[in-house]
This record gives sequence, C-alpha cells and structure tokens, in this order.
Amino acid sequence: MSEEAVLEEGSAVLEHPFLKQMIVQLRAVDSYGTYDTWSDAKVLDPMILTKARRREIPVVGDPDETTISRVKAFYNGLAQMIEKETGIMAVPVINLTHEGFGRAMIVVGKLVALDKTLRDVHRFGFETPEKLIEDAEKLISKAVELVTQFKEVAKL
Amino acid sequence: MSEEAVLEEGSAVLEHPFLKQMIVQLRAVDSYGTYDTWSDAKVLDPMILTKARRREIPVVGDPDETTISRVKAFYNGLAQMIEKETGIMAVPVINLTHEGFGRAMIVVGKLVALDKTLRDVHRFGFETPEKLIEDAEKLISKAVELVTQFKEVAKL
Repeated sequence: MSEEAVLEEGSAVLEHPFLKQMIVQLRAVDSYGTYDTWSDAKVLDPMILTKARRREIPVVGDPDETTISRVKAFYNGLAQMIEKETGIMAVPVINLTHEGFGRAMIVVGKLVALDKTLRDVHRFGFETPEKLIEDAEKLISKAVELVTQFKEVAKL
Repeated sequence: MSEEAVLEEGSAVLEHPFLKQMIVQLRAVDSYGTYDTWSDAKVLDPMILTKARRREIPVVGDPDETTISRVKAFYNGLAQMIEKETGIMAVPVINLTHEGFGRAMIVVGKLVALDKTLRDVHRFGFETPEKLIEDAEKLISKAVELVTQFKEVAKL
C-alpha cells in the first residue's frame, strides 16, 4: 500500500458518527497496541482504498491478520449502530476462509438483520471516507428496517 | 481414546435416519479419504463418548481438526434434516476459536433456526448412539417449530 496518507489529520469527515465508531472499533481489535500512538486519521487511513491503492494490491491473495481485523471492526461498528438504533443486542458473526472468502452476518435475537457474502477480503476497503459512510448507512438502515419489521423474531 | 469400538458392526441403531445422515456427513467432511475403507460403524464410533472414553480426554485442551470436522458434520446433518422437513434451505454456520469455544447456528432464510454455544469442543461427543439421536431430534424439532412459526422470515 502506498505510504502517502489519504485522510488528512483533523479532517472534518472524521467527526462523522460512523467514522468515530469505526475508529473506536479499529482500536478495539488492535490487540498488540500498534495504534496506541497513532492519530485517528492514521488509524482509519488503511480503510480507504483509492483506485491508486487498489491497483497496488494483487487481484488474488490471502488477507493478512490486519486486513481481517479491519473487516471485523467494520461489522462490529455496524452492529453497534444497529444496536443503538433498535435497542436490541446485535451480534456480528464473521466466517472467513484463509483465502478471504466467506460470510458476514449481524444477528439480532433470532433474526439475521444483515447478511453479506465476503469476497477478496485482501482488497477490503472503500474508495473514499464518504463512500465508507454511505455504504455503512445503507447497511445499517436496511438492517434496522428488517428489525422493525420482524421485531418479534429480533426479540427472541 | 480407547481403541475398543463401542458401536458394533451391523448394529440396528445404525439404520436410524439421523445416524445414516451423520455417516453421510462424516464421510463428506473426510477430505483425505481416511474413511474410504472404513465401515459405517467405524466412521460413527468416535462420535460416541462413553464415560470411560470421556475420562481419557483432558478437561482442558484444543480440539484437533478431526474433532472439529465431527462438530461440522453434526450441524451439517441437522441442517439437512431441517431442510428436508421445512423445504427451505438451511445453512450451518460454525464459529470456533482454536481453543474450542464458539457458536453454531443454522440459518434458514433470515431466521436463526438453531443457535448453540459451543464449549470444550475437544470433548465433543454423545454418551450413546441413542443419546445422539435424542439430542439431534430435540434440536431439529425445535428448529422446525421456529421455522413454522416465523415462516415469513425463514422465506426471506
């Protein structure tokens, strides 16, 4: 990945609630304390895969532990937001083969509120921070809608 | 594990539909072809953990690949039976840490028809073949009941 940062320090977009949540989640899965001395912008930066950055990643490859932890952080963040909006516990479940294929689900009670096939996880990322927010908000609102529609199952 | 077989060759219990399904599933996860020359009784035998066998397994331990494959076979078998009874595709999802803790789910549409916490997977097994059948039938009928009750979610 290119060494140049995409996200600027103190950039206004970092104040968006979902990006703030993402930063919390990324720090939460950082078991070795690598991010302890990093700024929020630096922690979030690898989630942004601009076209130039994407070109530098081979099409076929196995995801490393750090990339997988970012996928987990993303779904943990979604689960947190869904929980906040619905008031019911939301649990992320991620199943990945070592080749980076699999499935991500967010389970609320007995309801699968979100279900996504994961592919090419070694290239996980979003073109811009705005795209990350947009994708997350779409997923959250769809999940919340489902929970509202099938509240009885979500409360089981 | 003790070398003596618990399940006798040609034993009548092996004709039970769930045990037949278990044998199919065990053979299906046997990627190295170890079971190719084994009888059905021999394939199923390690699923039976009599008290004597259980005593031989340490209380704390990591499950090996073969044990994990048996857990998978069990939930694959349950999913197959649930699918057969409900006519809707049932997908097993198993998440295990290498210490043998985790969660097994069977998802039907957007419904979590079965959800079980897994513990001490290195000691996975059933005291008798009858107990295996009994446990499986309980899980299947609970899941089928849930699918019937929330058909709309199961069909999503």
